[in-house]
Amino acid sequence: MEVRENALEPGGSQLPACHKKIKPYIHKTPVLTSRLINEITGAEVYFKCENFQRMGAYKMRGATHALLQLTDEERSRGVVTHSSGNFAQALALAARTLGVTAHIVMPTSAPEVKKKGVLEYGGIIYECEPTLAARNTAASEIQQKTGAVFLHPSNDPDVILGQGTAAFELLQDYPQLNFLLLPVGGGGLIAGSALAAAYLGNNCKVIGTEPFEVDDAYRAMISGKIEENKTTNTIADGLKTQLGSNTLPVILDKVERIIRVEEQEIIDAMRLIWERMKIVVEPSSAVALAGLYRERKAFKDKQVGIVISGGNVDLSALPF
Amino acid sequence: MEVRENALEPGGSQLPACHKKIKPYIHKTPVLTSRLINEITGAEVYFKCENFQRMGAYKMRGATHALLQLTDEERSRGVVTHSSGNFAQALALAARTLGVTAHIVMPTSAPEVKKKGVLEYGGIIYECEPTLAARNTAASEIQQKTGAVFLHPSNDPDVILGQGTAAFELLQDYPQLNFLLLPVGGGGLIAGSALAAAYLGNNCKVIGTEPFEVDDAYRAMISGKIEENKTTNTIADGLKTQLGSNTLPVILDKVERIIRVEEQEIIDAMRLIWERMKIVVEPSSAVALAGLYRERKAFKDKQVGIVISGGNVDLSALPF
Repeated sequence: MEVRENALEPGGSQLPACHKKIKPYIHKTPVLTSRLINEITGAEVYFKCENFQRMGAYKMRGATHALLQLTDEERSRGVVTHSSGNFAQALALAARTLGVTAHIVMPTSAPEVKKKGVLEYGGIIYECEPTLAARNTAASEIQQKTGAVFLHPSNDPDVILGQGTAAFELLQDYPQLNFLLLPVGGGGLIAGSALAAAYLGNNCKVIGTEPFEVDDAYRAMISGKIEENKTTNTIADGLKTQLGSNTLPVILDKVERIIRVEEQEIIDAMRLIWERMKIVVEPSSAVALAGLYRERKAFKDKQVGIVISGGNVDLSALPF
Repeated sequence: MEVRENALEPGGSQLPACHKKIKPYIHKTPVLTSRLINEITGAEVYFKCENFQRMGAYKMRGATHALLQLTDEERSRGVVTHSSGNFAQALALAARTLGVTAHIVMPTSAPEVKKKGVLEYGGIIYECEPTLAARNTAASEIQQKTGAVFLHPSNDPDVILGQGTAAFELLQDYPQLNFLLLPVGGGGLIAGSALAAAYLGNNCKVIGTEPFEVDDAYRAMISGKIEENKTTNTIADGLKTQLGSNTLPVILDKVERIIRVEEQEIIDAMRLIWERMKIVVEPSSAVALAGLYRERKAFKDKQVGIVISGGNVDLSALPF
C-alpha cells in the first residue's frame, strides 16, 4: 500500500494553514487542570481534552485535514483506510461531513462497538484477517476497484499535520509549557505535536510514552529504524501499531526520549483521571500521565502538556 | 436535630449576594452540549457540569455558603452534619479551606471510598447506625459536646441558596432556557434552582425528576406534606432522602411537576452521557436526562438546562 509522501517542513510552518483549514469542522477543545493531580505528580499539568473532540478523539483533526487536502476529483473517487480504532470512525464521520465515500478496512477482531460507530457515520466496512499484510491487501483491492485515495491512519503527512493541531492549540494558549508528553502508537500524534512545538514552543521538549508491552518506538529511537511489536499484550489498544516512513524521521529528529510504563501504571493513571477529573479517557491517553508519574522527579515544578482522547473506551470492559 | 430556619425570599433575590460570596471558593463550571443527545431527545439540552466542580459536585456551593454565613465565633466552634454522600465530603473540604473543624456523622453503611474522601479532606468521622433517628442523635450529641453548629445537608436555608448558584450561573449564560430539569433527593438543589429561575428565568419552568423507587417528592406534591420512602432500592444513591421543612414549601410553590423514571432508564441515560459526552456523572444526575427522554414529547424543540454532578461514582461497581 503506497503512502502519500508529502514533505513535512521541519519547523512546523505548515501548521497555521492546516489549523485554519480544519477549524470550521472541529471543536476547539478545553484545557483542564487538576489540583490533586498536580499535588500527586509535583508538576503543573495541562490536559488538552480531545475526548471532547467530535467523535471523542483528536483523530478527527487528521482525518478532516487529509480530506480537505484532496482535490475535488480525488474526493469524488472516495477514500480508503485500514483501522481497527478511532481513525476508522473519524474518517467515516469526516467523510460524511464533506460528502465523500469512505471505505474502511477493519480486522475481524475489531470490537463490535467500533464497527457500529463506523456504520453509524456512513462508512462502508470491509472485514479482513487481523494482520498488517491482510489489511494492506484489502485496502489495495478496494483502491484498484474504486479508484479511492488511500489515507494511512498515522503515517499520512496530512494526517500528521492535522493531529498536530491539538498541541498547536494547546501551545497557543500555554506557550510557556516546558514539556509535551504524548503516547506513541503509529506516531502521528507525537510527530504532529513535535512540529507544533518546533513552531510555537519556547524550548518545549517533546517526550513519548509507551507501554513496555509495545515499545517499538523506544527501540526505534535506539536503532534508528522502524521496529515491530512481536506481541501486543497491552490495554492501550491505540498504541499497538508501529512507526512509519513519515513519522519515524520526525520522531528521531525532534523527540527527546520515550518513557515506558507497566500495564498497572496505565490502569492506575486512567482511574485517577476518571475519578478525580470526572472525564472518560481511553487507556492510550492515560499512558502519558503514567509516564509523567513514573518519572515525576524529572518533571518537578515543570509545566507539562498532555493530549488526551476518549474514543476507545468500552464501558462494558473496564479494568477497574 | 434543629434546622436553622432563615427566611428564603421567594423571588430569589438573596442569590446574587450568595453567589458573590462563594465565588472565590468555587469553580465556575462549564456548560456542555451534545449534538447526539439533542438528536435523540429532540430538545436542546444544556448540561451545567458540576462534576467539574471542586470535589465533583454542586454540594461544594451549599457547604461553602453555609460556612461563610456563620459568625467568626460560630466558625470557631466547628460544624456538624450527617451525610453518607457528597455533602459529607463537600463540608469537610469547604471547612478545611476556611479553617473550620468539621464533624461528620456517617452511617456504618456508607461506602469506604466516601469515608476516605472525608478523612482526606480533614473531616472527623463519627459512625452511626444507618437510620435517620440514629443520625440525628449522633449529630445532637456532637453538637452538645463541642458546641458545633449543625448544618443540614439539604434543608439548611444557606445550603439551599448555595446549591441554587449552579442554576444561577446557567441562567446568567442562557437566560432563554424554557425548562430546568433537576433530580430531587432532599430537595436542596431543586429548591435553590427554583429560586434562581424565579430571579433570572424568562418564564423558565422547573421540573423535578425522581426514581419510581424513591418517589417521596412526587407524593409530597400531591399530599402537600413531607412523605417518607419506605424502601430505597435505587441506583441513584443521592436521591434516597426525603424533603424537609425548608425545601418542601419552595417546591410546592415553584416546581411544576415531578417526572418519575425506572432504574433501567437511569442506567441507560448515565451510559449515554459517559459514552457520548465522555464525562463521568453519577446516577443521581442521570435521572434528569432519563426524565427528559421519557417525556421527550413535552420538551420537543425546547431549551432545557440540566445540572449534573459526578461525586458519587464508584468505578468498581458500575452498572454497565
